[in-house]
Amino acid sequence: MRTVLIIGVGAGDPEQVTVQAINAMNACDAFFVLDKGEAAAELTEARRALCSRYVTGSYRTVIIPDPPRDRAAADYEGAVRDWRDERARLLAEAVERELPDGGVGGILAWGDPALYDGTIRVLDSIRAAGHDVGYEVIPGISSVQILTARHRVTLNRVAGPVHITTGRRLAAGWPAGCSDVVVMLDAGLACSAYRDLPIDIYWGAYLGTPDEILIAGRLDAVIDEIASVRAEARARKGWIMDTYLLRLHPEPTASSD
Amino acid sequence: MRTVLIIGVGAGDPEQVTVQAINAMNACDAFFVLDKGEAAAELTEARRALCSRYVTGSYRTVIIPDPPRDRAAADYEGAVRDWRDERARLLAEAVERELPDGGVGGILAWGDPALYDGTIRVLDSIRAAGHDVGYEVIPGISSVQILTARHRVTLNRVAGPVHITTGRRLAAGWPAGCSDVVVMLDAGLACSAYRDLPIDIYWGAYLGTPDEILIAGRLDAVIDEIASVRAEARARKGWIMDTYLLRLHPEPTASSD
Repeated sequence: MRTVLIIGVGAGDPEQVTVQAINAMNACDAFFVLDKGEAAAELTEARRALCSRYVTGSYRTVIIPDPPRDRAAADYEGAVRDWRDERARLLAEAVERELPDGGVGGILAWGDPALYDGTIRVLDSIRAAGHDVGYEVIPGISSVQILTARHRVTLNRVAGPVHITTGRRLAAGWPAGCSDVVVMLDAGLACSAYRDLPIDIYWGAYLGTPDEILIAGRLDAVIDEIASVRAEARARKGWIMDTYLLRLHPEPTASSD
Repeated sequence: MRTVLIIGVGAGDPEQVTVQAINAMNACDAFFVLDKGEAAAELTEARRALCSRYVTGSYRTVIIPDPPRDRAAADYEGAVRDWRDERARLLAEAVERELPDGGVGGILAWGDPALYDGTIRVLDSIRAAGHDVGYEVIPGISSVQILTARHRVTLNRVAGPVHITTGRRLAAGWPAGCSDVVVMLDAGLACSAYRDLPIDIYWGAYLGTPDEILIAGRLDAVIDEIASVRAEARARKGWIMDTYLLRLHPEPTASSD
C-alpha cells in the first residue's frame, strides 16, 4: 500500500503554512504535481520555494501532465469528470511507478483541499478504480480566509449565514435569502450585474503573494476601478486569481430567510 | 498607538498553527484573553500549551473577565451587541493599561477570526469608540476545515455552492437552492428534522483535539447514534463543540437554484 498526503499549503504566502503541513511535507518520499494551465510557471516556482524553505531532506518532484480539458463543453460537469478520470489514471500510474510499497507521496494543494480543489476527488477516483492507495488530507488556509483577514472583516454577520458560490452561479441569480456571499472562480466580475443594490464589496487578487491587490467599498462606487485594475493586472501577469465578499445591506430579516 | 494582533490558531491541534501565527505570537508583549463560558478551563490550558510551545521569550497573559450575557433575550442580536460593547470597553481599558505606547498585544482566536468569532467586531467597537488601537488579523484553520479534512470530503461539489449557517437558522428552514450545507453553533442537532430527506451527514466534535469524534453516513441511519454519542460526550466533559456538513442528494439542478 502507498499513501498520498493532500497537503493544503495556503494561497501563496509561505508563512501561511501550518506546522502540520510542514511535517507532512517532510514525511514525503516524492511530490506529485498536477499541473494547471495559465499560472503554471509561477505556481511551479512557488511550490519549489515552499519545498526548499521547509523540507529538510532531499525530495523528488514528479510532474503529472495536465490532460486536455474541454472548457467550452455544453456538459460542463461531464467535461470536468472526464478530465478528472484521465488525471486520476495518470496520477495512479505515477504513484505506483515512483513510490515503493509503503511509500508516502505528497500533493501540495493551494488554499484548502476542501474548497474548489479537485485533488480529493482525484484520489477518490483512484481508489474507486481499485488502486491500493490510501490518502490523508491536511487542511490549509484558503484565499477566502486571506481575503477577510486582509480586509479585517468577518465572513458572517452576527449569527448569520454565509454563502460561497461561483461567478457562473452568481450570474444566474442572487442566492435566495443570503446577504453575505463569497464569490470564487469568477472569470468576469459577475457582481457587476448587482451594482444598483446596496452592497459592500471586499475584493482581492493574488492573495497572499507579493502581487496582492485589495479594493473595498460600496459596489457601485468601486466596481469600475476593480474592473480596470483587474484587467491591467491580468494583462501584465498573463493570469489572475481573485475572489470577493459581497455584503448586501440591510441584512434580510429572519422572516425572508 | 498600540496594536492588537488577532491571531487565528486553529481549532485545538497545536500542529494546525501557521508559521505566520507563530511569528505573530512572538511579536506580542502581552496576550489578552477574552474568556468564554463552559469550556473555559480547557481552553485556557490549550492556550497556555500553544504559548509555551511556540513563544520563545517571556510573555504576560491578561484575562478580560467575560461580561454577563443574556442568552434568553428575545432580541438576540441586540443582546449580543450589548455584550460586545461591554467586552470592548473592558479590552480597551486593559490594552491601554497593560501595553506601552507602540506596544503589541495578541488575542488568540480559536479557528479562523472571520468565521463565527466576535473578536474583529470587538476591535471595530474599540476603534469606533475613539481608542487609538490598530489591529491586524492572522487567518487560522477553522473547525470546518478540520471536519472536511478528517472526513476526506470536499465542501462543495463540482462548481457548486456551499452554505454555512447556524443550527437556529437550519431549524427555521432548509436554505433555498442549497444542497451542501455546513451547520455551526447548533445546540441541539437541528438536522434531525430533515432525517427523511436523502442526506449524507459528516459530523465531528472536539475537532483537532485528542477527544475528536467523527461520525458519517446517511442522516437517517446515523442521527440517533450521533445524538447519543453527543449527549454522552457532553455529559462527560461538561461542554461540546461540534459542527457538521449536510450533503443533500441529488444536487438540485441548475434550474432550481
